[in-house]
Amino acid sequence: MNDTLNLDFDRHRRQGFPEVVLGLGKTVTEVVRAATHLLEAHGQVLVTRATPEALAALGAAFPLGVCHQRSHCFSLGNPAATLGPVAVVSAGTADEPVAEEASVTLAARGVRVERFHDSGVAGIHRIMKHLDAIRQCVAVIVVAGMDGALPSVVGGLIDIPLIACPTSIGYGVATGGHTALNTMLASCAAGVTVVNIDNGFGAGFAAATIARVVHRHDVHRHHTKS
Amino acid sequence: MNDTLNLDFDRHRRQGFPEVVLGLGKTVTEVVRAATHLLEAHGQVLVTRATPEALAALGAAFPLGVCHQRSHCFSLGNPAATLGPVAVVSAGTADEPVAEEASVTLAARGVRVERFHDSGVAGIHRIMKHLDAIRQCVAVIVVAGMDGALPSVVGGLIDIPLIACPTSIGYGVATGGHTALNTMLASCAAGVTVVNIDNGFGAGFAAATIARVVHRHDVHRHHTKS
Amino acid sequence: MNDTLNLDFDRHRRQGFPEVVLGLGKTVTEVVRAATHLLEAHGQVLVTRATPEALAALGAAFPLGVCHQRSHCFSLGNPAATLGPVAVVSAGTADEPVAEEASVTLAARGVRVERFHDSGVAGIHRIMKHLDAIRQCVAVIVVAGMDGALPSVVGGLIDIPLIACPTSIGYGVATGGHTALNTMLASCAAGVTVVNIDNGFGAGFAAATIARVVHRHDVHRHHTKS
Amino acid sequence: MNDTLNLDFDRHRRQGFPEVVLGLGKTVTEVVRAATHLLEAHGQVLVTRATPEALAALGAAFPLGVCHQRSHCFSLGNPAATLGPVAVVSAGTADEPVAEEASVTLAARGVRVERFHDSGVAGIHRIMKHLDAIRQCVAVIVVAGMDGALPSVVGGLIDIPLIACPTSIGYGVATGGHTALNTMLASCAAGVTVVNIDNGFGAGFAAATIARVVHRHDVHRHHTKS
Amino acid sequence: MNDTLNLDFDRHRRQGFPEVVLGLGKTVTEVVRAATHLLEAHGQVLVTRATPEALAALGAAFPLGVCHQRSHCFSLGNPAATLGPVAVVSAGTADEPVAEEASVTLAARGVRVERFHDSGVAGIHRIMKHLDAIRQCVAVIVVAGMDGALPSVVGGLIDIPLIACPTSIGYGVATGGHTALNTMLASCAAGVTVVNIDNGFGAGFAAATIARVVHRHDVHRHHTKS
Amino acid sequence: MNDTLNLDFDRHRRQGFPEVVLGLGKTVTEVVRAATHLLEAHGQVLVTRATPEALAALGAAFPLGVCHQRSHCFSLGNPAATLGPVAVVSAGTADEPVAEEASVTLAARGVRVERFHDSGVAGIHRIMKHLDAIRQCVAVIVVAGMDGALPSVVGGLIDIPLIACPTSIGYGVATGGHTALNTMLASCAAGVTVVNIDNGFGAGFAAATIARVVHRHDVHRHHTKS
Amino acid sequence: MNDTLNLDFDRHRRQGFPEVVLGLGKTVTEVVRAATHLLEAHGQVLVTRATPEALAALGAAFPLGVCHQRSHCFSLGNPAATLGPVAVVSAGTADEPVAEEASVTLAARGVRVERFHDSGVAGIHRIMKHLDAIRQCVAVIVVAGMDGALPSVVGGLIDIPLIACPTSIGYGVATGGHTALNTMLASCAAGVTVVNIDNGFGAGFAAATIARVVHRHDVHRHHTKS
Amino acid sequence: MNDTLNLDFDRHRRQGFPEVVLGLGKTVTEVVRAATHLLEAHGQVLVTRATPEALAALGAAFPLGVCHQRSHCFSLGNPAATLGPVAVVSAGTADEPVAEEASVTLAARGVRVERFHDSGVAGIHRIMKHLDAIRQCVAVIVVAGMDGALPSVVGGLIDIPLIACPTSIGYGVATGGHTALNTMLASCAAGVTVVNIDNGFGAGFAAATIARVVHRHDVHRHHTKS
Repeated sequence: MNDTLNLDFDRHRRQGFPEVVLGLGKTVTEVVRAATHLLEAHGQVLVTRATPEALAALGAAFPLGVCHQRSHCFSLGNPAATLGPVAVVSAGTADEPVAEEASVTLAARGVRVERFHDSGVAGIHRIMKHLDAIRQCVAVIVVAGMDGALPSVVGGLIDIPLIACPTSIGYGVATGGHTALNTMLASCAAGVTVVNIDNGFGAGFAAATIARVVHRHDVHRHHTKS
Repeated sequence: MNDTLNLDFDRHRRQGFPEVVLGLGKTVTEVVRAATHLLEAHGQVLVTRATPEALAALGAAFPLGVCHQRSHCFSLGNPAATLGPVAVVSAGTADEPVAEEASVTLAARGVRVERFHDSGVAGIHRIMKHLDAIRQCVAVIVVAGMDGALPSVVGGLIDIPLIACPTSIGYGVATGGHTALNTMLASCAAGVTVVNIDNGFGAGFAAATIARVVHRHDVHRHHTKS
Repeated sequence: MNDTLNLDFDRHRRQGFPEVVLGLGKTVTEVVRAATHLLEAHGQVLVTRATPEALAALGAAFPLGVCHQRSHCFSLGNPAATLGPVAVVSAGTADEPVAEEASVTLAARGVRVERFHDSGVAGIHRIMKHLDAIRQCVAVIVVAGMDGALPSVVGGLIDIPLIACPTSIGYGVATGGHTALNTMLASCAAGVTVVNIDNGFGAGFAAATIARVVHRHDVHRHHTKS
Repeated sequence: MNDTLNLDFDRHRRQGFPEVVLGLGKTVTEVVRAATHLLEAHGQVLVTRATPEALAALGAAFPLGVCHQRSHCFSLGNPAATLGPVAVVSAGTADEPVAEEASVTLAARGVRVERFHDSGVAGIHRIMKHLDAIRQCVAVIVVAGMDGALPSVVGGLIDIPLIACPTSIGYGVATGGHTALNTMLASCAAGVTVVNIDNGFGAGFAAATIARVVHRHDVHRHHTKS
Repeated sequence: MNDTLNLDFDRHRRQGFPEVVLGLGKTVTEVVRAATHLLEAHGQVLVTRATPEALAALGAAFPLGVCHQRSHCFSLGNPAATLGPVAVVSAGTADEPVAEEASVTLAARGVRVERFHDSGVAGIHRIMKHLDAIRQCVAVIVVAGMDGALPSVVGGLIDIPLIACPTSIGYGVATGGHTALNTMLASCAAGVTVVNIDNGFGAGFAAATIARVVHRHDVHRHHTKS
Repeated sequence: MNDTLNLDFDRHRRQGFPEVVLGLGKTVTEVVRAATHLLEAHGQVLVTRATPEALAALGAAFPLGVCHQRSHCFSLGNPAATLGPVAVVSAGTADEPVAEEASVTLAARGVRVERFHDSGVAGIHRIMKHLDAIRQCVAVIVVAGMDGALPSVVGGLIDIPLIACPTSIGYGVATGGHTALNTMLASCAAGVTVVNIDNGFGAGFAAATIARVVHRHDVHRHHTKS
Repeated sequence: MNDTLNLDFDRHRRQGFPEVVLGLGKTVTEVVRAATHLLEAHGQVLVTRATPEALAALGAAFPLGVCHQRSHCFSLGNPAATLGPVAVVSAGTADEPVAEEASVTLAARGVRVERFHDSGVAGIHRIMKHLDAIRQCVAVIVVAGMDGALPSVVGGLIDIPLIACPTSIGYGVATGGHTALNTMLASCAAGVTVVNIDNGFGAGFAAATIARVVHRHDVHRHHTKS
Repeated sequence: MNDTLNLDFDRHRRQGFPEVVLGLGKTVTEVVRAATHLLEAHGQVLVTRATPEALAALGAAFPLGVCHQRSHCFSLGNPAATLGPVAVVSAGTADEPVAEEASVTLAARGVRVERFHDSGVAGIHRIMKHLDAIRQCVAVIVVAGMDGALPSVVGGLIDIPLIACPTSIGYGVATGGHTALNTMLASCAAGVTVVNIDNGFGAGFAAATIARVVHRHDVHRHHTKS
């Protein structure tokens, strides 16, 4: 099986972050071996969508790592949280695992996270009271399933980048998150961008990239001006 | 062609309202003939989804009637507006024709209408200021295209029946109103009911039926108690 | 986990009914904790879409409550049934769980329910004999899967609000209830409104809101006139 | 262009009926040439889905033929109507063109037709009064758009073959006839069979094949017994 | 639970065949009780889509009945096979269960069946050799999954009614039988009619209705002529 | 018609940018009136998705404005380009109008734009030579139709925020841009975010928001440190 | 506009064939300019999906070229037909334009074409008589719309590469070619490969690539062996 | 059950390769019996999509055969690898099973295989370094899930036949491989042909047919020239 593993060790140079191990469709052995190689090369590793078996094997192999049970992630060797902060807002309790995947990804990239729970539009006052705190962040991730209406409401009230992350929570016409996804893409609020259903990792990675470009230009200009 | 017209003159007895002429797929001649027969039988007629040619022919045939150009309706012989009121809220300017079809239908059934324009969620303060007025109505119709998020927001703030009417306004993933429809059906706000895309008539008819049942029970109990 | 629970205790004021616990995607612990908090605040609780484990835990925690096994609901502290009545019609035996969810929701809001079973269009005489009883109600909920044709037939014969609730019963083109849903939305009968697939709760909540607005206006006018 | 026409003159032997010219996607010249060749070979021709230009050209080329403007068909040389009868029921005025295509096809195959117009489920008494007449036929075609509910109702009340033909009439979720199609395929009434959307020709051809097999076996047994 | 069973004992009079028990979504108790009542009323019963548990319970309750394990059917009290014959052609081995459901239904309605196995288009000579035998039947059912191409080929070669029955066999774009269904509905062969995916019962019931109308007219004319 | 215009003059305060006029579904009169009011309030206006008639009317009403014919936009009163730069990459010539809409939006928000044309993956060397220039920007917008593969390739090679914008260019399975959209959402490259099909405005607005947050933090920290 | 044209002159080296001009979404000016540049560089040009206006402009600009009106192509400077032959089979008259696009593409790449018209499965003897001729080719393209069943039949009878090309011909469930496409992808015949709907160019290009690889290896081995 | 097995022993003559046993939907007994019969007739057998139970039974019945666990295949009696070579490229680790099915099929047809693993577009340098090796093959199979972008990139860089094989790997909008499939069909790279989702067998069979036609013409011309 050794021949089928062709890791991208160069990614850190190109994208500023090591390759992440996507557990989906990989055997436990493949997941652990990939994690081992990446950890050796970069001193850090993030695994997403790990099966319970893979999580257990990772925990056994790397006792210093953290198993995030609800979001099926494993992380080890996170850098200090010097970037951000990024706000992560979730609409309902059932959206928590995806919001956690976003938060774990942000932490793995050295970004500070502000979490806002259970803030769905059916009780809109719950998000209203946090708007000022959200406006202080460099970006906000809004996680919602079912009708996916929360990003439209939040997006009309703030002026920082908003990344909408639909979840597969719901039934019937929710169709595994496609309705929330389409609502977010068709949002009346200008400038909302969207990631795949349940893709907390993608939302977190994108927000971290924004946080880094904010930091880099700040440092760059500061140096230039000094 | 006479043989293909089989009107349902009995509907007034069963549903309390004469048959309505749906212009869709009918020739101008068929529309005018159906309108003539219904007008003779009931002294009132409502035509929906009439082509411009059919509207012109109806206007010529029945000078006392009203051609509603934007909503492609024709009405004549409306009863006095003794029921309601019902609120009709529209999210954007482009949703006006569907909201007008709902309003025309309500008027044709004798229901008073309160209209609230341009109240989309991207600027949520616009609907907030009208909530008290909406709460005084016996029902509210919320018309929205694109993300269809408005009923979720309104539905969480009121305690009267809310009928959501999606419109085909939008592009890309809006897919002719299917996203707005699905958002409304998957709404986090409890008790939202929904009609077909662009079906202002259906929304108006349903709200009028609520208005009538409110009125009937009121009268009935009043009589019983007297 | 305490930090992820942000209940909407204000909903009773806005919507006239406490927040309902949607079991979908929540852990047993989260469901029980939410039920406990709401019960303390309002003296009443309704849980829908509870897993068997959650139902068992609720039953153990609140021995006075009722576990509705077929509809996966739990209710406790229902008010007296002073509103309505609302008719609940189901097309086939397999549609019973959804009809029961609607009935449980109506009871939780203080509405009297009239149930009509096994009344599908393949044997249309079965519903015909109940039409007069249905016409005495303030609203009717029609629950059907497969072809979803029943609301079109019933809707053409009555003059009270009809809320159609599609179910996921069927196979092949029934596609988990989407065909029944679309049939109901495209119904030839005027004024049918629709809720999400298997959303007996939504249908019951909407019908209860109609029952309440009927009651409120009755009381209001009665007072005014006195 | 002569090389691209490869007519199936053998079809009459295999299927008992000459090849029919489907106008869809053919140029006027191709349609007229195909009609000419088939007419020469069989003394009869049926053209379906002809453009207005093709209809005009056919009328000019074959003055004895009949142009069916509403259904876009052209027929010439029909045999005597010795088979059937077959009932053709249509739900609404807008479904007439498809019902006419079915009727024209039946006539072209020598089948007697009984037509029942405007018999949609929103006023179900309209079809009820014709049930005895329908039961006398060898088969019934039911043509309906929008919710497509009519075949489910009729199918539960008769014991002859029922062929359901959906039409593209409707808007929004009707999606060009797909909802009516799916409703018919998911029908609760046993034994309903279905053809493509707007395929009046297919419905007529199938019913004519039933009529012929009824006739053939009758003649065959009669001869055997004599 | 007794109140939820509202059997249609009148169906035999209307459709010439007792109500059939659709096992889908029913509990074992409901299935057995429905079978018991129908058996008492008509001396015959057919159950389709029974779970293994329901099949076992039926077998225990009615030892004289037949459990058709592959097609999940149960039948008891079939009439003598005096109608037909009807041909049942299946494309592949995996389509057998659906073809068997059709055959069981035909037998339950007193129709003789001719079975042709494993006759897919990838080896078209396999069906060619049976064409003459098929042409002797009053109708043919063609069962196929994957590309669903078999009915188009057979339909162009015969002159008896052809009922196409798609199956859910396949993967990827086969999408649970929708591709086979659509192929059959869009068939180039004239007069093919179609039933829902995996609906062997519907195909059998429709073919039996054809067989009965053939028989009835034969008897009727014979009597008239005598 | 005056009553139907309810502009959101407060948006500038909340989102740092005045309301934009979406021409879709609005009459020419409504577009011009909205533009007039916004121009008066903010000294700047941007109109998107204007019909040719609306563009002509805007050009006549405001001779100092710019009509962007290919992207159906109108802009007037742009601020100086002090933010950015943002790269806008388009895959093919046919994607130019959407890329132009993005560029016009960026300019209207005071962001400098770097444009890279005709850089599709079928000739991947064309984008490779521009990677260093792209890496100097604060964000990159990648516009592509058909297979939508370009963002996956670019996304794996850079470390700045990438906003993917699908276009409706293509035929068959391209289905009006849905395939490009889904490809982008399912991208193997981490952190790609996506906007609706043909939504150049949304992509531009989101990138401008990133540019502004980069600028704001830079200024803020600079001030703090000074 | 000059800046938006970034032609891929290197493609000839990589793919052995110059870039082809896809007319879709390009202006007439852009099409003619691209054709001019490619003609100068390679002495040959092929344009596909040209509008009638673009075809006229190309014909005027390059009088030696050939305008293929039915397939909307323009070709000039074809090499001698030294490769192949490749068979191009079309199911119906309406599929001719797509088959012609494939043939034009093959000719532009120097491949000899054998054309077989009007060979649909409804009259299967029409293709049977040509099987021996098809087997002599290096590959076969099968073009079909509606049910798309022809490749399954042909594919089971030959042993050369078969490229299936679905067309958008049909109505209702044919859904613009998606049913034919899916049928071909789900084909029971082993080894069928498929291109996009109406993509005669792609089918021709792929078959030409096969013809070239056959030729190259032949030449190569011949040289090696000499 | 013996009657339901109708194997196509003639296929070897028509297609140059014996019938392959598709395990999908077959019982273990049916799979083993089909394998036995084919092995007796041809001395070779290939089984695809076998369940673990069927694989175990095949391994027990034919100890000389090879069980390919990851791709659910069984092969025995492969001919010598005298054709090809064909390159098989896979994008990610999770795509390995499908790539293996393609490789097993190629080997069963006597084709030499070159495998390239883990070459997705997110790290495009990984495939770039293998391009020269790929160009030496007679065809290339590219296996990819998620965004399915790899064939577009590879297709633009080579001049041999490319068969794209989408996999069901991914989540959300990947929708079981449909997005990868559509991306490949809409590919900007000319001449890409595509097989069904997860259809490694089909891709391998098609590539083997190309390899054979290359070989046959080589031999044929060689003989002719000698």
